[in-house]
Amino acid sequence: MEDAKASLISLDEETTDDDEPVVTKVTKKSLLTPKTILADVINNDARTTSTGVGVGNNNSGTLTRGIDNDDDDVPALLDHTPSYSGNAINGNLPGNDRDNADSEPIFRVRSRTAASSTPNYESLDYEVCENTLFQEEQRKSLTERFSLRKDIIRWIIFIQIGIITALIACTIDIIIEELSELKYLFLMNSVESNVPKSDITGGDLVVPFLYWILLSVLPVAFGAAMVTYIEPITAGSGIPQVKSYLNGVKIPRIVRIKTLAVKAIGVITSVVGGLAGGKEGPMIHAGAVVAAGISQGKSTTFVKDFRVFKAFRDDHEKRDFVLGGGAAGVSAAFGAPIGGMLFSLEEAASFWNQNLIWRTLVASIISVFTLNIVLSTYHGLNDFTFTGLFNLGKFDQPLKFDYFELPIFMLLGVTGGLLGAAWNSLNTKINGFRKRYIPWKFGKVCEAVVVAMLGVTLACMMIYFINDCRPLGNDPTIHPVQLFCEDNEYNAVAALWFQTPEATVRSLFHDPPGSHKILTLAMFALVYYVLSCATFGLNVSLGVFIPTALVGAAWGRLLAMVTFYLFPETEFLHPGKYALIGAAANLGGVLRMTISLSVILMETTGVETSFFFPLIIALISAKWVGDYFNEGIYDTQIEVNHVPMLPWEPLPQYKGLRAREILSSPVVCIKLRDSAHYIYNVLKKCDHNGFPVVDDVKGVRRSEGRVCGIVLRSQLIVILLKSLYVENSHFWLPNTTIQTFRDVYPRYPSIKSVRKLDDKINYTVDLAMFMNPSPVRVNAHDSVPRIFQIFRALGLRHMLVINNENRIAGIITRRDFIYK
Amino acid sequence: MEDAKASLISLDEETTDDDEPVVTKVTKKSLLTPKTILADVINNDARTTSTGVGVGNNNSGTLTRGIDNDDDDVPALLDHTPSYSGNAINGNLPGNDRDNADSEPIFRVRSRTAASSTPNYESLDYEVCENTLFQEEQRKSLTERFSLRKDIIRWIIFIQIGIITALIACTIDIIIEELSELKYLFLMNSVESNVPKSDITGGDLVVPFLYWILLSVLPVAFGAAMVTYIEPITAGSGIPQVKSYLNGVKIPRIVRIKTLAVKAIGVITSVVGGLAGGKEGPMIHAGAVVAAGISQGKSTTFVKDFRVFKAFRDDHEKRDFVLGGGAAGVSAAFGAPIGGMLFSLEEAASFWNQNLIWRTLVASIISVFTLNIVLSTYHGLNDFTFTGLFNLGKFDQPLKFDYFELPIFMLLGVTGGLLGAAWNSLNTKINGFRKRYIPWKFGKVCEAVVVAMLGVTLACMMIYFINDCRPLGNDPTIHPVQLFCEDNEYNAVAALWFQTPEATVRSLFHDPPGSHKILTLAMFALVYYVLSCATFGLNVSLGVFIPTALVGAAWGRLLAMVTFYLFPETEFLHPGKYALIGAAANLGGVLRMTISLSVILMETTGVETSFFFPLIIALISAKWVGDYFNEGIYDTQIEVNHVPMLPWEPLPQYKGLRAREILSSPVVCIKLRDSAHYIYNVLKKCDHNGFPVVDDVKGVRRSEGRVCGIVLRSQLIVILLKSLYVENSHFWLPNTTIQTFRDVYPRYPSIKSVRKLDDKINYTVDLAMFMNPSPVRVNAHDSVPRIFQIFRALGLRHMLVINNENRIAGIITRRDFIYK
Repeated sequence: MEDAKASLISLDEETTDDDEPVVTKVTKKSLLTPKTILADVINNDARTTSTGVGVGNNNSGTLTRGIDNDDDDVPALLDHTPSYSGNAINGNLPGNDRDNADSEPIFRVRSRTAASSTPNYESLDYEVCENTLFQEEQRKSLTERFSLRKDIIRWIIFIQIGIITALIACTIDIIIEELSELKYLFLMNSVESNVPKSDITGGDLVVPFLYWILLSVLPVAFGAAMVTYIEPITAGSGIPQVKSYLNGVKIPRIVRIKTLAVKAIGVITSVVGGLAGGKEGPMIHAGAVVAAGISQGKSTTFVKDFRVFKAFRDDHEKRDFVLGGGAAGVSAAFGAPIGGMLFSLEEAASFWNQNLIWRTLVASIISVFTLNIVLSTYHGLNDFTFTGLFNLGKFDQPLKFDYFELPIFMLLGVTGGLLGAAWNSLNTKINGFRKRYIPWKFGKVCEAVVVAMLGVTLACMMIYFINDCRPLGNDPTIHPVQLFCEDNEYNAVAALWFQTPEATVRSLFHDPPGSHKILTLAMFALVYYVLSCATFGLNVSLGVFIPTALVGAAWGRLLAMVTFYLFPETEFLHPGKYALIGAAANLGGVLRMTISLSVILMETTGVETSFFFPLIIALISAKWVGDYFNEGIYDTQIEVNHVPMLPWEPLPQYKGLRAREILSSPVVCIKLRDSAHYIYNVLKKCDHNGFPVVDDVKGVRRSEGRVCGIVLRSQLIVILLKSLYVENSHFWLPNTTIQTFRDVYPRYPSIKSVRKLDDKINYTVDLAMFMNPSPVRVNAHDSVPRIFQIFRALGLRHMLVINNENRIAGIITRRDFIYK
Repeated sequence: MEDAKASLISLDEETTDDDEPVVTKVTKKSLLTPKTILADVINNDARTTSTGVGVGNNNSGTLTRGIDNDDDDVPALLDHTPSYSGNAINGNLPGNDRDNADSEPIFRVRSRTAASSTPNYESLDYEVCENTLFQEEQRKSLTERFSLRKDIIRWIIFIQIGIITALIACTIDIIIEELSELKYLFLMNSVESNVPKSDITGGDLVVPFLYWILLSVLPVAFGAAMVTYIEPITAGSGIPQVKSYLNGVKIPRIVRIKTLAVKAIGVITSVVGGLAGGKEGPMIHAGAVVAAGISQGKSTTFVKDFRVFKAFRDDHEKRDFVLGGGAAGVSAAFGAPIGGMLFSLEEAASFWNQNLIWRTLVASIISVFTLNIVLSTYHGLNDFTFTGLFNLGKFDQPLKFDYFELPIFMLLGVTGGLLGAAWNSLNTKINGFRKRYIPWKFGKVCEAVVVAMLGVTLACMMIYFINDCRPLGNDPTIHPVQLFCEDNEYNAVAALWFQTPEATVRSLFHDPPGSHKILTLAMFALVYYVLSCATFGLNVSLGVFIPTALVGAAWGRLLAMVTFYLFPETEFLHPGKYALIGAAANLGGVLRMTISLSVILMETTGVETSFFFPLIIALISAKWVGDYFNEGIYDTQIEVNHVPMLPWEPLPQYKGLRAREILSSPVVCIKLRDSAHYIYNVLKKCDHNGFPVVDDVKGVRRSEGRVCGIVLRSQLIVILLKSLYVENSHFWLPNTTIQTFRDVYPRYPSIKSVRKLDDKINYTVDLAMFMNPSPVRVNAHDSVPRIFQIFRALGLRHMLVINNENRIAGIITRRDFIYK
């Protein structure tokens, strides 16, 4: 996020701290320094520490003067354009010796962000750089065929994304299902063999407990270790990260294949280990990785370039694919194509357009369809009727509701909002504690193990102390534990715990009335509430959807049971229906989504469209109540991590401000034709990512020129790396296209990989064909809400602020809209 | 659409046509003319007839010179700032005499559009004018309470929109249902009494035929006359109009209450009259009117201002409400809340944001809920189980499908695409014919009557010639006609025709296999295809959804029957399922929507989520095939009417262009402090809607000043009307707020309503507090795709193009992105 900010640039001069102009000192100290090259950097001296100081005092028309004044006390000796005689410099800086110039930094340009405590996020380049090379490609694409071909390829990629995401989801699904079944069958057998069938008062649960601990701790420890040591970015659900990415914040390593592999193993181990989490959240992340991987046609993890899809190698195209991948992931996780698409739109996407939505939907449908085929085949069915696609279980009868139930739904919503807000707040506190006191890696793994053990212990205690025996039904799919119960009964508590959380949600939705004691459900809801709160934030890959739904389903069902217990005439209170509404309310309270959640719940349970109304009432109430206290859990996580997310609307405190009040200045500029050496040094000494390109530099100072474009750091590095100089243009000009720049995307080399310029030190770079000639320029007097709209709508990274004479007054980046 | 275009301004000098500078002539002719006041207009003389001529030849940095050159041959005598001595002018132009200045126009400024053949659409002001007055209001709104209050009111309005839209929809629904039942019962009785029960070979159908003609022609003639003579904008479905409105094009009278009334009556009469159309399309329009009416708290039709919701009186706020109203309308029409919202997004909306979608959904849900309550109550049910909400009939059993059916669905989709494209093309041709040969109003009414009679005749002929008798079922809801059939049989052809089209769709979806002959369905599909094609475009209020679905359902069912007939082993081909797929395919082929259509079909028929896949396959195939030939019917209508819709992406031919290549210039500018007289004359003489405000006018010419804002024509008129002059600011300054301007929204008075300035002729207007100080300015070198993005995303009306020195180079409006 240091995008071309120079406002807090401090030019640390090593040996001195007096007020004498920095540069005279430098020239005294070392004639090796190409001093004039850094003229601009020097001019932007350390006095201007606060944003916009240089322009703050000026009103319309006098902005330039404001900046000029800054320079009046810079010695005139600096103020001439660099004009090296190659020899003089080469003589002073002989080739190899200059390598140790690094160890003697003459100026260290430090950005504000590096100094502050917030992490150093970079922006993505969602802005299409419409330079001459791009225009050339565009001209080709004006031919109908090229454009059609690109469009068809785009469709093919989206379809591939859908298929592969679904295959990955299936694999994770099946592995979790099989392993969990093995684990819980083993545990149940162990229980049965250790507690004699007739023993209904108590017995020895120590051996099964130890087995349980072991079968939980082993996978959890393995998963947590993978996550912690191999790829820490895979911790959590991944939704906040994907959301940040789609908003334009670069989250390192978020879309690598290695990340996907670790995430998949992490999810499997954690769910099998019995942590209070679900696999649904990570699916969106998995889909995003798949999308990014396929669309780019190369993999960093495998160091392999398949040489396909080259035209899609930029942040802008990648972003759209990632959105499609996320949608495909949710769809596959829930078997809900519309829900998946809406989830992506509501929670993840920051930029939409109609075509994109359209492609996203197709990816979602393909994904669900693939899932259906694979799972149907796996379960030995020949048609597409695999009901496992309703992964929260299909309601057999249509759910109905009456007028007078609407206030009840609303009350449930309010309860969900309160519980959700409390959950969010508690979870944030726990995570803050975690961050402060458990910074080392081994500790994080241990913590996960401890939480896993805590879960098993609490479950065991519940099973041991609560005696909830229910008559055996005829359903052969249930594996009941007889533990402490009569011969024709099963232990309802054990039934809740001896399965994956997802299966428990299903039970709560669909078990017939009277399947549990009130105490059982109350304890279960409480324990799971605490457990899920302690789990989300551990260094394991787990989502928050299923545990949240589970807690909601538990207290929803509980409320129906309590009401029925108090007023036996209220037998209309179908407990499964209230479990569903409770789940919706709790989800609304924690996640604060509404549309997509209600659609997902409808699609995963097969309820009628008319039941949409109760669901949305609960969700809206929950959201409104929750919003009164805090933000949704994903947004909270983003905020806690200081990710510079651009909101949908400008923050209230920005209303009434003008661009000049938020800009960062002064700015490091580059001339349209500048020396390679100057560019090299600028890149070396400052870490900005965008540099305004100026022209019409009459006198000396670049920042006095008129803006004619903007060039990115990555472009400059490629130019230097490939030696695209004016002097040798006959070599490179014929075969340099936009592809030259795309080839190094997205892992642009650092300036360190550029060899010292040596013989090319007096070569010139002509930026005319490389720079973006249409940078978004706003006037220093423009209102911030207006420029925010532009910044947001176009997904900009840099916005140039110019004064009335088209001279640079400052630069605005993402951070300027968020932290003031 | 003449938004501040001066590119084709021609200053028609009345008596001369030689090349001498226009103004010398003027000064010679009449000293009465306040010549210097029009200096700018004059400078923009007629020589610059093509766009951007003034700047076209110049490259970077020389734009200003380009413009300056234009002026070199304008006589210097013009080049001095207006400096009236009040007396001199007043003396020359005494108060009352100047009124007839109108009849002696000295310059007539004619815009390009007025001269061209395209209709004269204006833009809406979706851009928020952030002037000082607005800022003041914003400052107030920074207090938490104000902002919260506005938000709550916004929610209340959306809820009201949902309720009232649903009530209107119910009313229309019920009236249509009751009247149609009366009509068809009467006709059936007439048939039964005229054709003896035992007569199965033929009989006298003349009397029922005449009755039928009468009962069709009367309502249709009445409706067509209402539409034609009272409010022609109500013709058709209204969706293209609402879509254009939401895109930012002002469609006169589109959202008036009178329009709503005529539309409602028009729909009722046309559907009852038996025209091949549905009531669903007009519902979106009705919802839009309701939304616009409620949100503004006043009505032009009733000349009533309720003095509420004043803060929402601008185009921007109104647009959002209209979107919500449209969604509520669709939801009420189909009983499909999600479908309604998605329909609005997919088909109507041009601008979205998350909050808006959220509110739109709530309006939709409220609407469906209200509909449910009212219809349940009306039908005497006590719970919310009124299945009439599934207005295409609920499929009782879950529809299933097999692998091998997918290619069939795709084939059906392709068929639908072909038929739809042919329908669109045919319909467009018919409408073109109509436009050319039936321009007079009475003819239009007659045409509607003729089409109604044609429909009845064809139906009667089908009933007479096709002998399709089916055994009577046990369903008491069917009113079968025995006509030409045995005693325990009914006439399947008559059953198809003797009900509303909507009911026929229901029959085709749900009638058991073997309910019709192949010939019956084939003839019916053909006749309805032709009829609907002839109907859409008549001067009646009718939608295209139901007839399109009906044709699709007919040929879908037909195909299943033919296949079964040829290969009797294919009995799995559930005809109702194929009717549904056929309807989807035909709808996809005509409307080219996909997401919302599939959701609407799912919601209105209650099919399972898993059936989403076949539906979307058919829809996608239909859309792709159709798109190969032409555009969807709504877009075709918009194009035929030359509505300047902004597409989602810039048109391909704009790629690679620069702003200077599409701008319109020169531009009429106004100084920051300008004379009231100059402003009055500019408004009088030119019809631009936005004027750049310039400052720093050193010499004479306004267009040489530096841009500091933009002011709208409507604002200037209010300023003049309310005499907001510098000289009398002590009167108005304390109580002038943004509300002063909102009060006259949206029917801004024309300049003609401003009295001649008389004594205020030398008063001054200071635009500082009125103008928008943050107009979107782009550089003349900026690429068009980039500036299009800005224009589109911000919903702009005017975009100022400046050169490198912040002087005006031209202006870009909506039209510049569309017609070149």
